[in-house]
Amino acid sequence: MKVLNRTEIEAGVTPAAAIAAIEAGFKAYSAGEVTVPPVGHLDFKHPPGEVHIKYGYRHGDSLFVVKIASGFYDNPTHGLSSGSGVMLVVSARTGFPEAMLLDEGYLTNVRTAAAGAVAARYLAPRHVNAIGIIGAGVQARMQLDFLRHVVACRKAIVWARDPSKAAAFAVPDFNIEAADSTADLAARCNLIITTTPSRTPLLAASAVRPGTHITAVGADSPGKQELDALLFARADIRVVDSRVQCFQFGEAAHSLRIHPELRDSFVELGEIVADTSLGRRNDEQISVCDLTGVAIQDVEIAKVAYASVASE
Amino acid sequence: MKVLNRTEIEAGVTPAAAIAAIEAGFKAYSAGEVTVPPVGHLDFKHPPGEVHIKYGYRHGDSLFVVKIASGFYDNPTHGLSSGSGVMLVVSARTGFPEAMLLDEGYLTNVRTAAAGAVAARYLAPRHVNAIGIIGAGVQARMQLDFLRHVVACRKAIVWARDPSKAAAFAVPDFNIEAADSTADLAARCNLIITTTPSRTPLLAASAVRPGTHITAVGADSPGKQELDALLFARADIRVVDSRVQCFQFGEAAHSLRIHPELRDSFVELGEIVADTSLGRRNDEQISVCDLTGVAIQDVEIAKVAYASVASE
Repeated sequence: MKVLNRTEIEAGVTPAAAIAAIEAGFKAYSAGEVTVPPVGHLDFKHPPGEVHIKYGYRHGDSLFVVKIASGFYDNPTHGLSSGSGVMLVVSARTGFPEAMLLDEGYLTNVRTAAAGAVAARYLAPRHVNAIGIIGAGVQARMQLDFLRHVVACRKAIVWARDPSKAAAFAVPDFNIEAADSTADLAARCNLIITTTPSRTPLLAASAVRPGTHITAVGADSPGKQELDALLFARADIRVVDSRVQCFQFGEAAHSLRIHPELRDSFVELGEIVADTSLGRRNDEQISVCDLTGVAIQDVEIAKVAYASVASE
Repeated sequence: MKVLNRTEIEAGVTPAAAIAAIEAGFKAYSAGEVTVPPVGHLDFKHPPGEVHIKYGYRHGDSLFVVKIASGFYDNPTHGLSSGSGVMLVVSARTGFPEAMLLDEGYLTNVRTAAAGAVAARYLAPRHVNAIGIIGAGVQARMQLDFLRHVVACRKAIVWARDPSKAAAFAVPDFNIEAADSTADLAARCNLIITTTPSRTPLLAASAVRPGTHITAVGADSPGKQELDALLFARADIRVVDSRVQCFQFGEAAHSLRIHPELRDSFVELGEIVADTSLGRRNDEQISVCDLTGVAIQDVEIAKVAYASVASE
């Protein structure tokens, strides 16, 4: 039984390996080649906190993974990060535990950033003139850092609710400017990533130019919403990581409340990986991808982290 | 983050502490003072295996526990035990992991044996003339070993499907004889524990003498059954660890298929701990206790193991 701490995990997981693993995971998920049971939940009141237990495996794999991710919202008042997490890697041949990844939530950030890169690889226009980033937190930085592996553009426009955070936002090699508004950002960018925990839409459907791809990664639970509910209706290509999940609580769910007739037009990202004809066909189309986070991503990223030490 | 191996856990958990913790856990469970969500499942086909994920907490506790227990049935052909397991102890104040218990399934055996002792403490007749043990495996041995803490009797009669295992069965300080049949055993014992994974009844209702208490610990999932379905009807006191669970797949479920009118007569063990007037009232009554295993037992036993090192 190996126990890996965050430093070891950060050293062992490269963005390129993470992107390849998440891409393969989405493809297997959409092909029905994975088992990911419903997420387990524990809620706490005093102090307020929530715990998600996600688990599953890819059929034929020699490993399965259980992730325990927590958010305790009073932690920052004690100088602690609100999020935490561990992943347990177990043999799917014997049931014996093989590794414990004390990643403190890092791998969840990586698998989310890697999913954004996969979406951009298949859906961004051929020439990205500027990357728009909405939000200026850890995930905003990681999305941009991972996009470098799939997009040549090194110019980014950032918008955040707190202008001082937007002004301070920096990622190596990128030329970054702050936008006055999300409309200003949308006017200057044809690849946009939204990375906030917002509960009200931040990006108006009317602000988006033809030829733009938008990926939204923030709406990972009920009540959250970053995109105008009309944006999916305006889009030519409507993509989700998981139909069952996004129709329940993602940006897609908000859209379907207004336009239920769009339901059959949604494509899973893993289906596009398997058949690129389902993706972008020209540089005039608007594409939108809603990423709510699927347990197979946790399985795949844990495998990458474990493989980096298992071979030592 | 502490990582405890099986040797450390065995050294840290005394039967007396385990019995006290499980007794308190049952009481809290039946009083509605615990949160234990539905068990998570993962099934594997090649090789065949099953994984249960049990988790929960006692309200007000500073810890919650996640247990991952597995059974892979081809393991013994490779010289490995079929069962394995780990428990993760996490702060219910911050969500940060505190300890990983690599108990290899040992704590599950302990919490089951401790539950048998709690049942005997509240339900056995005042004078036990001999303890009957059906089955001769690890759990049979541990049940007897834990009963020494609540019952003065040191005479035991054992029956097992394989007579050579019954003949070899030994527990320190106990005078043990093998029985020819379960009817023979029931004729000589007034405290009986069934500890097998049987899928057909082993103990006939007609064989049980007045004044006997029977605890069945084997039926922990659908399809398993150790007791004659008529035994609960013959009993004066009908006890379960969890109504919701035992009515779904325990011995009680088999009984209710024949005698649905008994449904309201079942009492939870934790209710008897809180109010002993619900338990045995004289030495002529027959009492039966169906233990399917409740996640609060895993929570409580993990707390005992963790407390043994947290104070060091």
